Amino acid sequence: MKNLPIGFIDSGFGGLTVARQSLRQLPNESIIYFGDSARVPYGPRPLEEVKEYIWQMTNFLLAKGIKMLVIACNTGTAAALKEVREALSIPVIGVIHPGSRAAIKQTHNRRIGVIATEGTIKSQVYKQALLEKVENLTVYSMACPEFVTIVEENRVGDFETQGIVNERLKPFVDNGVDALILGCTHFPIMRGAIQEAVGESIQLIDSGVETINEVSTLLDYFGLSRTANDAKQFPSTQVFYTTGEVNHFAKVAKNWLHKETIEVIQCEVKGNVLIETNHSEP
Amino acid sequence: MKNLPIGFIDSGFGGLTVARQSLRQLPNESIIYFGDSARVPYGPRPLEEVKEYIWQMTNFLLAKGIKMLVIACNTGTAAALKEVREALSIPVIGVIHPGSRAAIKQTHNRRIGVIATEGTIKSQVYKQALLEKVENLTVYSMACPEFVTIVEENRVGDFETQGIVNERLKPFVDNGVDALILGCTHFPIMRGAIQEAVGESIQLIDSGVETINEVSTLLDYFGLSRTANDAKQFPSTQVFYTTGEVNHFAKVAKNWLHKETIEVIQCEVKGNVLIETNHSEP
Repeated sequence: MKNLPIGFIDSGFGGLTVARQSLRQLPNESIIYFGDSARVPYGPRPLEEVKEYIWQMTNFLLAKGIKMLVIACNTGTAAALKEVREALSIPVIGVIHPGSRAAIKQTHNRRIGVIATEGTIKSQVYKQALLEKVENLTVYSMACPEFVTIVEENRVGDFETQGIVNERLKPFVDNGVDALILGCTHFPIMRGAIQEAVGESIQLIDSGVETINEVSTLLDYFGLSRTANDAKQFPSTQVFYTTGEVNHFAKVAKNWLHKETIEVIQCEVKGNVLIETNHSEP
Repeated sequence: MKNLPIGFIDSGFGGLTVARQSLRQLPNESIIYFGDSARVPYGPRPLEEVKEYIWQMTNFLLAKGIKMLVIACNTGTAAALKEVREALSIPVIGVIHPGSRAAIKQTHNRRIGVIATEGTIKSQVYKQALLEKVENLTVYSMACPEFVTIVEENRVGDFETQGIVNERLKPFVDNGVDALILGCTHFPIMRGAIQEAVGESIQLIDSGVETINEVSTLLDYFGLSRTANDAKQFPSTQVFYTTGEVNHFAKVAKNWLHKETIEVIQCEVKGNVLIETNHSEP
């Protein structure tokens, strides 16, 4: 059981920032990733539809064999975490609570900021998760959908970008927050620009980093962790599936994960199941 | 079940730094704390003896009713975590793995320092926990027993203290570590002096802070967390038991936990069980 991979599911590329943290913090673990790029973004879709897609990816990975499932997508976590966790016999983790817990751990002045997509901010999942734990917090939330576009269009290093980010995040500086949750899995890609905009006195909370910390906690708790010795006997592996265009997916994944080669397998939706159709060039 | 307190056990005062984090990060939770001050320190005792004491405190708290047990003591964790976790039906957490995981999460240059008591350093539990997870780390360990004395003798603010700490921790600065684990529950009390000695570029890892983060993770995972609304219906409580001198215990606990009043109940060892004998003045 412990030699099985950890499964990651996401609407597209975003969850790769969570997978990247798995490679960094848990190098002995194998991973298997599903990015539903053909149906991205999930944000504007009805909750029931998102839940259905999350179940399709979950069933696909369960059939491959996984020891733990990470819903590496804020919208997917909000829509389906509770239901999937209750239904599965393996541990299931989402990205919202780890970020919330880390912000509570870090804040000294109890003023916490959250940036995310419009859907996540409207759903107030972060605000609820935070206030359920500690009532006397002040939570400032802001949708920054243009940040997703900047990342997707590979404009993070552009001349104009820093100005846009500075302008957008100024209210958090003015309101004196001391912890800012990056509540969208795309945002760690532009972490440098965000830190530059808010200054060193605001601690950035990367949901991906914190999610993998919790993955590690639960793997240890359930005796499912692989040690360095295990990895010598059975080397760790990484496999990626997408409903999108495999070569484009491979290009982004290599870039974000700092890898020379990556195995990406093409999938399609048939009725309400996902099936494998093709492999990418290595 | 979820309205039961979280149990904390320790050889004496040290675990109060972990309990303090529970009050900060999880204000809706009730706590019940047992400090075995009459038999402190555990460090020099044979492993089997420590295990026996941990079981005595565990059985005492189980009889009171707890939903989770935290072994808030490095020596106790090394001696008994595995056995107690396997035997109990409630979640059991120690202080060693949370600190190790946080150091792996924080380090960028893969050079990690550990300071602890002589027993903990000799046992190499931190080094093992770190290298099991990530093999290509360099771990620098150092026993700092005099730091425990400084805290116990209330000499943290003394003129000479900063010089002693600077001198002792210089090797970590020279070796270029970027994360330093405070592997003894006394050390967060002198966090300011330690940070001053190593400079702002070394991130201090407080096992107590990280342990409560994991408590929060597991409470949520098992559906055992209390929300702000729960705390309105059934206000959270804090009760302390000690085999040591109650008024001295109450004085230290009030100071460390920043509380005006604290309820401390006297206990004694009878054969191999712990029994309540008396209450402190409030």
